Amino acid sequence: MVNIAVLGTGRIGQMHVDNLAAHPRAQLGGVFDVNTSAAQAVANKHNTILFNSINDVFASPKVDAVLISTSTATHADLIEQAVAANKAIFCEKPIDLSLDRIKSCEQKIKGTSLPIMLGFVRRFDKGHSAVRQAVELGKVGDLHQVIITSRDPDMAPDAYIEVSGGIFKDMTIHDFDMARFILGEDITEVFASGSRLVNESLMKRCNDYDTVTIVMKTASGKQCIINNSRRAVYGYDQRVEAFGSQGMAISENHPMNNLRLYSTEFTDQKPALMNFFIDRYGDAFNTEISHFVECIEQGKQPKVGFEDGKQALVLAEAASRSIIEGRTIHTKEI
Amino acid sequence: MVNIAVLGTGRIGQMHVDNLAAHPRAQLGGVFDVNTSAAQAVANKHNTILFNSINDVFASPKVDAVLISTSTATHADLIEQAVAANKAIFCEKPIDLSLDRIKSCEQKIKGTSLPIMLGFVRRFDKGHSAVRQAVELGKVGDLHQVIITSRDPDMAPDAYIEVSGGIFKDMTIHDFDMARFILGEDITEVFASGSRLVNESLMKRCNDYDTVTIVMKTASGKQCIINNSRRAVYGYDQRVEAFGSQGMAISENHPMNNLRLYSTEFTDQKPALMNFFIDRYGDAFNTEISHFVECIEQGKQPKVGFEDGKQALVLAEAASRSIIEGRTIHTKEI
Amino acid sequence: MVNIAVLGTGRIGQMHVDNLAAHPRAQLGGVFDVNTSAAQAVANKHNTILFNSINDVFASPKVDAVLISTSTATHADLIEQAVAANKAIFCEKPIDLSLDRIKSCEQKIKGTSLPIMLGFVRRFDKGHSAVRQAVELGKVGDLHQVIITSRDPDMAPDAYIEVSGGIFKDMTIHDFDMARFILGEDITEVFASGSRLVNESLMKRCNDYDTVTIVMKTASGKQCIINNSRRAVYGYDQRVEAFGSQGMAISENHPMNNLRLYSTEFTDQKPALMNFFIDRYGDAFNTEISHFVECIEQGKQPKVGFEDGKQALVLAEAASRSIIEGRTIHTKEI
Amino acid sequence: MVNIAVLGTGRIGQMHVDNLAAHPRAQLGGVFDVNTSAAQAVANKHNTILFNSINDVFASPKVDAVLISTSTATHADLIEQAVAANKAIFCEKPIDLSLDRIKSCEQKIKGTSLPIMLGFVRRFDKGHSAVRQAVELGKVGDLHQVIITSRDPDMAPDAYIEVSGGIFKDMTIHDFDMARFILGEDITEVFASGSRLVNESLMKRCNDYDTVTIVMKTASGKQCIINNSRRAVYGYDQRVEAFGSQGMAISENHPMNNLRLYSTEFTDQKPALMNFFIDRYGDAFNTEISHFVECIEQGKQPKVGFEDGKQALVLAEAASRSIIEGRTIHTKEI
Repeated sequence: MVNIAVLGTGRIGQMHVDNLAAHPRAQLGGVFDVNTSAAQAVANKHNTILFNSINDVFASPKVDAVLISTSTATHADLIEQAVAANKAIFCEKPIDLSLDRIKSCEQKIKGTSLPIMLGFVRRFDKGHSAVRQAVELGKVGDLHQVIITSRDPDMAPDAYIEVSGGIFKDMTIHDFDMARFILGEDITEVFASGSRLVNESLMKRCNDYDTVTIVMKTASGKQCIINNSRRAVYGYDQRVEAFGSQGMAISENHPMNNLRLYSTEFTDQKPALMNFFIDRYGDAFNTEISHFVECIEQGKQPKVGFEDGKQALVLAEAASRSIIEGRTIHTKEI
Repeated sequence: MVNIAVLGTGRIGQMHVDNLAAHPRAQLGGVFDVNTSAAQAVANKHNTILFNSINDVFASPKVDAVLISTSTATHADLIEQAVAANKAIFCEKPIDLSLDRIKSCEQKIKGTSLPIMLGFVRRFDKGHSAVRQAVELGKVGDLHQVIITSRDPDMAPDAYIEVSGGIFKDMTIHDFDMARFILGEDITEVFASGSRLVNESLMKRCNDYDTVTIVMKTASGKQCIINNSRRAVYGYDQRVEAFGSQGMAISENHPMNNLRLYSTEFTDQKPALMNFFIDRYGDAFNTEISHFVECIEQGKQPKVGFEDGKQALVLAEAASRSIIEGRTIHTKEI
Repeated sequence: MVNIAVLGTGRIGQMHVDNLAAHPRAQLGGVFDVNTSAAQAVANKHNTILFNSINDVFASPKVDAVLISTSTATHADLIEQAVAANKAIFCEKPIDLSLDRIKSCEQKIKGTSLPIMLGFVRRFDKGHSAVRQAVELGKVGDLHQVIITSRDPDMAPDAYIEVSGGIFKDMTIHDFDMARFILGEDITEVFASGSRLVNESLMKRCNDYDTVTIVMKTASGKQCIINNSRRAVYGYDQRVEAFGSQGMAISENHPMNNLRLYSTEFTDQKPALMNFFIDRYGDAFNTEISHFVECIEQGKQPKVGFEDGKQALVLAEAASRSIIEGRTIHTKEI
Repeated sequence: MVNIAVLGTGRIGQMHVDNLAAHPRAQLGGVFDVNTSAAQAVANKHNTILFNSINDVFASPKVDAVLISTSTATHADLIEQAVAANKAIFCEKPIDLSLDRIKSCEQKIKGTSLPIMLGFVRRFDKGHSAVRQAVELGKVGDLHQVIITSRDPDMAPDAYIEVSGGIFKDMTIHDFDMARFILGEDITEVFASGSRLVNESLMKRCNDYDTVTIVMKTASGKQCIINNSRRAVYGYDQRVEAFGSQGMAISENHPMNNLRLYSTEFTDQKPALMNFFIDRYGDAFNTEISHFVECIEQGKQPKVGFEDGKQALVLAEAASRSIIEGRTIHTKEI
């Protein structure tokens, strides 16, 4: 049994705690959160250890690995400490909002052979990974275009938006990683266009955008289009399309259930989409944890790691700069 | 150019007239209807001959074939006259409401080599015929079950229902033929169940049913289920499913257009179904006429003819009797 | 926390064990199986009690309820014993293969107020229950026809088929209950037709059918059609259609994931269906257990209980007799 | 009856001829083509006049209107001559490959009240126009993003590609117009990205691209994405998506028929898409001509005219320049 402690017991942390507790080959090694009462409740529910400090976690010989779901600003520090303490690492995205900080972290942990996994959960979605697999198996021939539609069901609270790092680092970051996952090769050019259509005043205040389109290209000319909106009233819109010389593979949306309604006015109406990521990617979060457990068991590197976290941020930086300059940015400029 | 005269210029007759006029290898040879003014209008529109009598049509040496879309009671007589006049025949279904009359007609025209085609238009629908083709190509393996869903968009006028011959001979007749078409072998057993749910008082008065289910079996055990309703508020519901040992083929419904709507309450909503047979089977009516033209040109028998019209009526008779007796009827009992 | 012991740790029993262990308000109270080593493994995995005998389970004051997933022949006895021991009951379907035995059991437990729940899991499927809800909310108007398509992905092992009680009591039993669930009123007439198309020799030997169609009617004339096959090569085909005066509600199939493939030959191809009941109805099994826990907590009767188990068997008996006699059987004849 | 002569009897011209011949309120007034034998065959088929020269067409007092489906280079001249001859005009797209020529033509015909219609046939597609209607009716709320997927089934012949004017003026031109149609407001910014993935050598030789993505914005910030490929092996891929604050409307693809196939490996497989524009937009070409006839009858301007043809070319020019300069081009720069 792999012993994993969870750092950070907010919404996503609690979900990871539940998944670890139910996992056949993992043991929930304890929890920590700066919000002690929240952490206590989680510990009680699962009859596990409540650590008094981060140091206690890292000092515990029983703990094999840490799952980092604290606030973004602490991620890089915790990764460095975990490496120093010889614990395997699962870290929620993004590593940091600053590319410089990511690079300095990279330097510090260089050479470690500990499994370090980044929480790009969508790679573990059955539909999205089936698209990637179809590409790998040659079912679409040579890949020409990847189209990612990714729209949140609703704007996050203002307070969150204000510190999120902007749409590219907070929301598109998942899509940048998905683009890299499906394309299977490095992206060299990035163009972005942004609009303020959902909440113009908030976006102006934050110098941010709520509706963006990104067009990217690889060295071999493959194109990738991402379109994002902070609010899709019909639910969490998550589609991936891979178009190639021999066909196309699409990962389709997930309505809440498989009902179809027919009436005098319409036919074949489906319910609204699953809403939100803990529902929509519930299976994927489980598969993700299983992959992490397997990597620890076998001492191998996860399929998605630190470098992927860094490259996604490079694309986010390129997108931000493209909007400002109104031109294509080459990733080597970042 | 094949010269075809149209007898009966009601709604369906007019549609055939339009199709013949537009056909590249057919010539509209003239029209006749007991309602002279209606026929005159049609003749004017297409600048064609208005015949003064049926006899004039049959006497015309220019006319190669007649398309019979008059009232049902006249079909058998007209078929006999057409054979006597050496004209190829396209006759709308049913041949007659009486199996005895059909059999006497059969005797009279026995031995003719003239093309005689029955207007079971659904055989020429792209989707339905693709199901049949899939079966023939072995794509579903051995056929086990055929499920036909067939619901009209609305009840016909009372006056029509009263003289229609009942739901089995008027409406299910198309589905009986579709069952034979897809199954590709003789049906030996028929069970039917009827309800009065759409218009109970009218159905009672007519000793008829508006909602029926028919279960049939072939000698080799293949099953076929037909479910009918006189009114589907979402439009003309026309589905055919062929299930077998290696797969399944389905002919799906046709919404009015390919719009999909998403809102706060729903996703992927399609418009109501095409409504009614002249729209839904518009392409098929054209293909049907083309097949008739080709049969005349090549002097060959149509893919669907007199015997098919007769067998569909046998099944209708069996269904009627099954409802009365509450048991499976063997077609050899009819 | 509700303490529930599991009797029978075969495939479905193990799944219930896992669900109970993960349930926030239930406690796995221990397990028992005549196959002691299998039960031991399950007990070890979940660190729970291995009971030495059924009597020990019923004697334990900690156990609030039993979940019966033993072989069918033991169900009625265990229900009687559980009632005597004052334990709430969740029993897998069917109660028994003999209607007489069910009736004698009914007599014995008459008057108990203990929650007794039958494992008709499909009532808890999101899609199927959404169809029922649509009917209740009047979204389809007056219900006219219910069409249930239910095909297993493959024939069970011969040894199982031989003792299953026949297709109606083993497989269609779920569909009979679904029919009652969706219709919401008593079924009065049953007609059945059976074929041997999947494995003719086995079916002949067992005097059973692998391909059946059942047509049923309620007193008010509502129709229900069930079509079953023991083998659908594309996966577990589970569809429910409710057609009424104002519309239609359909519960659609569940492909393995949401991939769509396009190639030179085809478009929009989905993967095979989820396969088999533990996958397809995985969510429903969880919801089912939650409902049972809630009933125990609140001392209320489950939405699906002993009477439902009995009525489903009445329909199975009627179907068997209809095939033999080739006629509609009235349920009052059973 | 409106008398319309057809200039240019190539593939698309012949289709227009057939539609005019079948139209209830139009009369085919004759045909002309520099390829006299082709024109003769068309004239014979429809028993209409073969004009000896363009001048004869314009001189004919019977001719009310001309349908121009000659080669692109002749369009502007013919429009000018038709206006001089007082004939209503239907002209296939594009008006010309040179924006300057379009502007000089515009000057010459300024002030005419003759109906002048451009052949942007997709505006008359049932699905696409239903999307526009949904937007107009407020069904998607405020429009935020329009996504147009437009992929030809296969590369046109090399000889055609070489003189086509490039992908933006030849193929994307339809999508530029669709963008304007759905957005309902002027586009101010254009960014384009091009790749050579289908036929690299041909594209290099022509200084053209076979795979392009265009991102556009209106003054109010609405975004529009077009993605094009010269070859989609699964057929003619034509989708339009309008996403807004209250929902989404999509015009979906048209498979060849409504067959769905299920097998051991897959479910719900549809046939390849309709292939090519004369099939896919067959209905739309008919509706288009009806609109033109109606405009002539009522002396009103068509819903899509000269200005739309000009604006689509402005966008094409902007896209070409954007690729060269790697930046967003403002349409006022063109």
